[in-house]
Amino acid sequence: MQTVIIGSGNVAYHLAKALKQNGISVAQIFGRNENDLQKISTELHIPYSSERLTDADLYIICVSDHSVEEVSRMITKKNCLVAHTSGSLPKEILSGAYRKSSFYPLQTFSKSKILNYKKIPFFIETENPEDQQLLTAIASKISDKVMESSYEKRKYIHLTAVFACNFTNHLFSRAKEISDSQEIPFDYFLPLIDETVQKIHEMEPKSAQTGPAVRNDKRILELHEELLSDESLSIYKTMNLSIKKMYHLP
Amino acid sequence: MQTVIIGSGNVAYHLAKALKQNGISVAQIFGRNENDLQKISTELHIPYSSERLTDADLYIICVSDHSVEEVSRMITKKNCLVAHTSGSLPKEILSGAYRKSSFYPLQTFSKSKILNYKKIPFFIETENPEDQQLLTAIASKISDKVMESSYEKRKYIHLTAVFACNFTNHLFSRAKEISDSQEIPFDYFLPLIDETVQKIHEMEPKSAQTGPAVRNDKRILELHEELLSDESLSIYKTMNLSIKKMYHLP
Repeated sequence: MQTVIIGSGNVAYHLAKALKQNGISVAQIFGRNENDLQKISTELHIPYSSERLTDADLYIICVSDHSVEEVSRMITKKNCLVAHTSGSLPKEILSGAYRKSSFYPLQTFSKSKILNYKKIPFFIETENPEDQQLLTAIASKISDKVMESSYEKRKYIHLTAVFACNFTNHLFSRAKEISDSQEIPFDYFLPLIDETVQKIHEMEPKSAQTGPAVRNDKRILELHEELLSDESLSIYKTMNLSIKKMYHLP
Repeated sequence: MQTVIIGSGNVAYHLAKALKQNGISVAQIFGRNENDLQKISTELHIPYSSERLTDADLYIICVSDHSVEEVSRMITKKNCLVAHTSGSLPKEILSGAYRKSSFYPLQTFSKSKILNYKKIPFFIETENPEDQQLLTAIASKISDKVMESSYEKRKYIHLTAVFACNFTNHLFSRAKEISDSQEIPFDYFLPLIDETVQKIHEMEPKSAQTGPAVRNDKRILELHEELLSDESLSIYKTMNLSIKKMYHLP
């Protein structure tokens, strides 16, 4: 089976690497950025082109969301399977006469980072059971966590990640604003943050909740509100109210 | 110098252990819970009592916030130094004729866990420079991160921790609600969460921000709002607005 990866960014690089490492040959890596393609090609020993897309059975599109549709039009072959790797697009965004699918790895990729691919979940959606089986077999060589997933489900996966990662990171930014204001090094808080995350590897986050809100410690809650303003105050109130509701506090 | 630890909970246990490991002898561990005291005493080879507080130069009170004042009254000696370990109480809560101080380790302690004490920040406040020097010397044997800190500053330390840890954990709870609703195992998100936290060990959280809000991707933001309700929707809107303000998005 011939597989081609389209794109030369972080997802393309890591997916190509993960495939190669697990004995799945990649016939070509195709994209616009000659420079990036060349680097990946040299490191992973995969032929590349920025001009002619080679013939293949499977094309995996690893480009940013807003380019997926345009790029998918370049595949004029009919009897083949095309997958995009976006968490927030339906497979129908792919524009061609081929079979359409989604092959979504749930991870933030940065090129320089060495990742443990075994732990990266893959969510797969196809038009028919044979393609589902094919993509599941490929993903299962890379990862231990492979799951079928409709577009509807993918929306919720993305939303979960927004809460657990994007918003979490923003809390770190707001926390750092507070510690910076008092000239307390933010890296003093890293062991505590690491511990917070380590805990949810071992227990339910709901059972791991600590802090003044879940203790319903009104003295501290009022004291903290006096120290805050603007967006940080809004976050403080919203989070406390949400904690109050979740634990049915008076 | 004679040191006594008052309390038999997680902070008392870990502090006693950290002191002993670093060559500081503990003369007694004192508390109410005979059973817990005995366990700590056996493991760490420290005498214990639930009846008579032994004579010492330094008493470190490791009990919950609401008991600190009451417990501090049991120390009737005058020429000694007493420290509490609370992040949210002034040293003046200590009720006696002795010298008062705060000795605050910034970490969540659970008894079973082996912690790297070197990384745990200690914040210290005393009445005079000699006591500051004494407690700093003790903390510096345990940890690499020791800092003077007024009550005012401690309030902000606690507040930073609430944002970076308590609220972060609550986001995990809300995220898990979303993934549970779709029967997606929450542990699929752990590698992504680990990666999010690993990143802020290497870069500023503000520079590490990803997601639809910072990309100002209105299509996704609207789509997500339709999937949410109640507290999770409030959190979604509040966090996005805060991200919008922080990055001056239109």
